[in-house]
Amino acid sequence: MKLNVVALAGGVGGAKLADGLARQLAADQLTIIVNTGDDFEHLVLKICPDLDTVCYMLAGLANPETGWGRQDESWQALANISILGGPDWFSLGDKDLGTHLERTRRLRAGQTLTQVTRAFCESWSIGPTILPMSNDPAPTIVLTNAGELGFQEYFVHQGCRPAVTGFRFEGAPQASAEVVRAFQSADLVVLCPSNPWVSIDPIRNVAGIQDHLDRLPVIAVSPIIGGQAVKGPAAKMYSEMGIEPSVEAVAGHYSPWLDGIVIDKVDVGAAPKLEESGLAVLVTETWMRTKAERDRLALAVLEFREKLNII
Amino acid sequence: MKLNVVALAGGVGGAKLADGLARQLAADQLTIIVNTGDDFEHLVLKICPDLDTVCYMLAGLANPETGWGRQDESWQALANISILGGPDWFSLGDKDLGTHLERTRRLRAGQTLTQVTRAFCESWSIGPTILPMSNDPAPTIVLTNAGELGFQEYFVHQGCRPAVTGFRFEGAPQASAEVVRAFQSADLVVLCPSNPWVSIDPIRNVAGIQDHLDRLPVIAVSPIIGGQAVKGPAAKMYSEMGIEPSVEAVAGHYSPWLDGIVIDKVDVGAAPKLEESGLAVLVTETWMRTKAERDRLALAVLEFREKLNII
Repeated sequence: MKLNVVALAGGVGGAKLADGLARQLAADQLTIIVNTGDDFEHLVLKICPDLDTVCYMLAGLANPETGWGRQDESWQALANISILGGPDWFSLGDKDLGTHLERTRRLRAGQTLTQVTRAFCESWSIGPTILPMSNDPAPTIVLTNAGELGFQEYFVHQGCRPAVTGFRFEGAPQASAEVVRAFQSADLVVLCPSNPWVSIDPIRNVAGIQDHLDRLPVIAVSPIIGGQAVKGPAAKMYSEMGIEPSVEAVAGHYSPWLDGIVIDKVDVGAAPKLEESGLAVLVTETWMRTKAERDRLALAVLEFREKLNII
Repeated sequence: MKLNVVALAGGVGGAKLADGLARQLAADQLTIIVNTGDDFEHLVLKICPDLDTVCYMLAGLANPETGWGRQDESWQALANISILGGPDWFSLGDKDLGTHLERTRRLRAGQTLTQVTRAFCESWSIGPTILPMSNDPAPTIVLTNAGELGFQEYFVHQGCRPAVTGFRFEGAPQASAEVVRAFQSADLVVLCPSNPWVSIDPIRNVAGIQDHLDRLPVIAVSPIIGGQAVKGPAAKMYSEMGIEPSVEAVAGHYSPWLDGIVIDKVDVGAAPKLEESGLAVLVTETWMRTKAERDRLALAVLEFREKLNII
């Protein structure tokens, strides 16, 4: 049987597992649906941080040190903007700027974000289909003790310092025909180890997507390892919202429609209780430091599918 | 007496003489009014080639080989745009892109081009005042045997290959308050060695400017040397419009309001006839290969003012 997989992803952690999945599956077996709640307008450009992170990663163009941005990047435009007194708090490398400029040009010319992303993936020889969660704007607003903040204002400009009290997803994003088709032919959904609050929840907020998640077998790879996030503010967010950051918290986040969860060996103690709650549990090494570790985890996730209770 | 000079300039040749003038005069004695007929929208950016050439030159940031663009420039954004199938016919370096991004951002935020240019000049520690000829759009259209072409389409994309039959200046540009004040306090106008058709004529087309040129002492430095333009299509344009490219053609272009003309030694034979027509004539070396030659020519132009018949 040919397995069709839809992976939901945010930034770096999600991109790494998606990259591993891309090497385990044929190109037409994998669709990666990417969070666009982080997208924003900056310096007259439309910037899609998570889409770019996933595309650069799968194209082999990502900066291996940071996980985001381009390898062998230069920063000449930003240095000039800085001298001219312009906004320089968002790191825009020169290569990366080419992506934003050409994307913004195409969007203004009437292409959808889905069309632009497909064209870029072709230019970069990316096999799997990468789809923005929606063509409609759906900005994530972070509710904090410093007021309501746009995601990049919270995440980059304020360095995740304000304490989070909640989230709001603006807009009423519709699923594109491509997203609907991907779910319709899917046999499995993988929630990549991305932030549940600001990477996965915005995708779930797109009209109709939760119905597919309710219907399909879903495996989540926990972005929380030993009470910490590998990267980003997920653990800090859980704590600030009064929830202990843990694999149980992640499972609870996706309850009752989650079917299986992949947790790290350091969290093995949580497995019995998770299983008691009716989840299939895979305990394995989930920290992806190398390409080989991405591949190994991706393969383990795909094999784990056969152990889901629903099959 | 404190001499106040207004210099009209287009691209590289104009920028070089303006740079020379900037070192002969105090900052408050010199205003450079720059052609914006070449400005265009490209890749969602507002690009002002002549303004940037003059600013980069006076800031000491210009590429010394080309005269336009930035020194120590890189081209990473453009290489990416090219891979993505975007328009890559207009050379946009990475440093240069910072200028266009920050300018476009400020214009969208409601600043005038004059305000943006003043802020940039402050950031780059440029002493003299550099003013766009107008805050209003006034695109130069080149009429050719290949149809009507936007200036950059003609100049860069089609490499000046189509034969020119005429020009049209779109819009109804008004002079800014800053341009009016500069002319009101001017004692001398210098027409830099820029293309008469597409650098100086667009400035003359701004409402009210020709009146100031009629009223004030005006010296032109011929951009034609020995029947050739040092750079650009000026000579080709004269030929295609049925006029032999020569210093006499330049003098005729600016007749009857021109008071003095500076011509190169190779054109000394034209001096008697020009003088007969009532013009003061300075014969000197006008080719500016080095900074010292810019300074020498600028000083000669300023000293030549005392020989104008009108004084």
